[in-house]
Order: sequence, then C-alpha cells, then structure tokens
Amino acid sequence: MAIKMYDLAGADPNRRFSPFCWRIKLALAHKQLEVEMVPWRYQDKPLLAFAKWDRVPVVVDGTEPIIDSWNIATYLDDKYSAKPSLFGGADGRALTRFYNAWSDTVLNGAISRFVAVDIWAHLMPGDQPYFRKTREDRFGMPLEEYCKDREARLPAFKQTLEPLRQTLKSQPFLGGAAPLYADYIVFGSLMWARCISSLRLIDPSDPLNAWSERMLDAHAGLARNALRYW
Amino acid sequence: MAIKMYDLAGADPNRRFSPFCWRIKLALAHKQLEVEMVPWRYQDKPLLAFAKWDRVPVVVDGTEPIIDSWNIATYLDDKYSAKPSLFGGADGRALTRFYNAWSDTVLNGAISRFVAVDIWAHLMPGDQPYFRKTREDRFGMPLEEYCKDREARLPAFKQTLEPLRQTLKSQPFLGGAAPLYADYIVFGSLMWARCISSLRLIDPSDPLNAWSERMLDAHAGLARNALRYW
Repeated sequence: MAIKMYDLAGADPNRRFSPFCWRIKLALAHKQLEVEMVPWRYQDKPLLAFAKWDRVPVVVDGTEPIIDSWNIATYLDDKYSAKPSLFGGADGRALTRFYNAWSDTVLNGAISRFVAVDIWAHLMPGDQPYFRKTREDRFGMPLEEYCKDREARLPAFKQTLEPLRQTLKSQPFLGGAAPLYADYIVFGSLMWARCISSLRLIDPSDPLNAWSERMLDAHAGLARNALRYW
Repeated sequence: MAIKMYDLAGADPNRRFSPFCWRIKLALAHKQLEVEMVPWRYQDKPLLAFAKWDRVPVVVDGTEPIIDSWNIATYLDDKYSAKPSLFGGADGRALTRFYNAWSDTVLNGAISRFVAVDIWAHLMPGDQPYFRKTREDRFGMPLEEYCKDREARLPAFKQTLEPLRQTLKSQPFLGGAAPLYADYIVFGSLMWARCISSLRLIDPSDPLNAWSERMLDAHAGLARNALRYW
C-alpha cells in the first residue's frame, strides 16, 4: 500500500507551497517510496483528527499516522533503512538538526515577510479568514503591513544566505556529492517562496542559483515540475 | 614525535584567543594526539615561512606543515582515522561545512565588533600597530568606533544564537551525544570572546550556557583551564 501524505494546497489544488511539506515530499522521493498525495486545506483540519494533529505534513504508512516534518524524516530513515540515507548515520542526523533550526527561525522568519500576503491571495476563499486572523494575531499587524516594502528587505535577506553560498563553493550539495535531508530542509523554504510569490529571492547570477537548479532537477524534476513562479 | 601547533598568543603567552586555533586545539584533543603548543604572535610571521603561510593555526606533523583550520581538521581525521571521528563520515564532513561557513561569517562577524578593541589591548606592544592598521583598513574605521556601543548590540547577537539554542534543546552537543568538529567550530568562536573580553556574551541563565559549560569540561577541561574572563 502506498504511503499517504497530506500536503497543503491553495485554491488551485496543484498549488503546493508548504516548506515543511516540501521537506517531506523530497525525503519520500529520496527514499524511493510510492506516495499518494492528498491536497489539504486549513479548513480540512477535521480530516487529521485520526492523527490527533491539525497541521501538515501528516504521513500515513499502512495505518500508522506520523506527524511533524522532523519526526517524519527520522521515521522514514529508520523504517526504510535499506534505502539511501537521509542523514548519513547518527552523527549526520544530529548535525542536520541545526539546518532545521536555522531554516525554521532565520530563513522562514525572513521569507514569511516576503510571502504572507501572497499566501493569503492563493488560498481557497474558505481558508482566507482563518489564515489572516491567525497570522495577524501572531505578527501583531495586518498582513499587508507585515509584507510592506519587501523589496527593501531583499539585500539583507540575500546576505542571510551567505553561509549557504560559502558552503556550496566547496561541494555541489549541503550533503556533499548528493543531496541529503539538510538540502531538502533549506530548499523547502525556497520552494515555499517559489510556489507562492512572483518575487524572485535568488538572482539567476547568484552562485546559490546553481544549487537551486540542481535541486529543481533532483528526483526526476519533482520540484521543477511543481506549479511555481520561478 | 609530538605534533607541533602554532597558536596565536597575546602579550601574556598564556593568553590564547584565536577562534581558528581553538577549533584545532579541541580537534587535536578529540583525536587524542600529543601536541607541542608554540605561542605565536603576528610579528612571528617569518617563523611560518617554511609552511609558505602567514597565519595560524599551522600544524606540523613530522615534517609536514598543514595550514588552514578546515584543512587541518580534515587532514587529522583522514590521517588518524582509527581515532574518534571529528565528522562522522563523509556525509557528516559535508554537513559540517555549513557550521564552518556560518561561524566564519555570522558568528565571527558579530563577535568581532564586541572584541576587536580588547584584542588590540591584549597584544604584545610590537603586534599592536600591525593589528590596528590591518583591521582598521578592513573595517574602514578606528577600532574604537567599530566596537562602540557594543552593549546595545548584545540583544541582536543573542538572537543570532537562536538556531543553536533550538538545536541544543534536543541533544547535548551539536554532534549529538558527544561533541564533533561542528561543536569545536562554534565553541571556538565563543572562546575567542571568553579569552579576550570581560563582556559576557552568554548569560548564565541562557540555555546555551549549559552546552558551553559542557564544552569547557570536554577533553579534561582543556578550555576550562585556559586563561579567560568567563
């Protein structure tokens, strides 16, 4: 039986933009697993009651629900240990946590201020009030105010990517010669922006772009074939 | 024959503060290697002519000089592969590069603006004009201006450490159950500050402090026994 994955979707069911879901879509492909993707919207929270959870990604393997992207990745790596490793062993798994933390805080925190209004605009009408209310409560301001003057924040954002740029001078992927889960974590954040906003966060001339192109191509072009702006 | 390591020193020969040298001192201890430490000052550049290099750390193993901290760490791991690994295999080595890049840019860039004046104050009189000239040329301003109002930058700096804090909620070291080279990279930057400046960059109440204490204790208290302010 194929693994089932609940994947955040916009009004267009092909618009799949969640950074956490991208991490797991790429991890499932890395593990060469057959997957049935289920588009999911915020208003579908009751659909996840069986997992006692209200966010995606949720993966169902047989009858077992697995929640939370980090937890799903480690589950997949342990359960399907004969398939290519996502981490490169116990030490690699420990070392990958910092990528997760850096992406969750620094990267996603910055990208959120570029794309929050675009996310709202791409949601099903039934999802829009929920998204606006929860995010405006969290941000303490209207979405439009939160994303205001975003172009002015681009240079600082590009500077934030400098450690990635330096790393990728020495090797084609964060994981070395081939991508590992660390690549999927960081690239998942970029796919969030690529799938939801026309604002290009990485210039074609940026050395990071070559890595990003390799990531689009990975696993038979899984990310390249997605509905996206750039 | 013991490995020889050239280690940056202040006017007090026991004042050893270079972040790059700390990485390697801890890596050598991790590899359980006997080391002869040679205090080195900026005016001792001619001493490194044999290595065709003018910075420390420089390590001499037998007659072979090895330069550059990343290069030294990978040399030690390859040459002494029967000793505990610094990286956890090829994947772990690739994954560690980002720690190096993040520490070199984000962490050291921020710490520099806290400690540059303190470094100058702790150098041999013969080193002070060289340090002031090269750094002021690089920073484009007097050292005192560069480090001005440093207390006001502390909250932003502590925020920069958030990905470390999140990572260390789940495991005692960046490398997992025990320290790896990733820990030595990041902690080396903190030792730079700890050995040269009375300004405490991590509060005792900061969750990061528990990791920092473990790092001070590692390898028979190598860092704890160093001449330092905090």
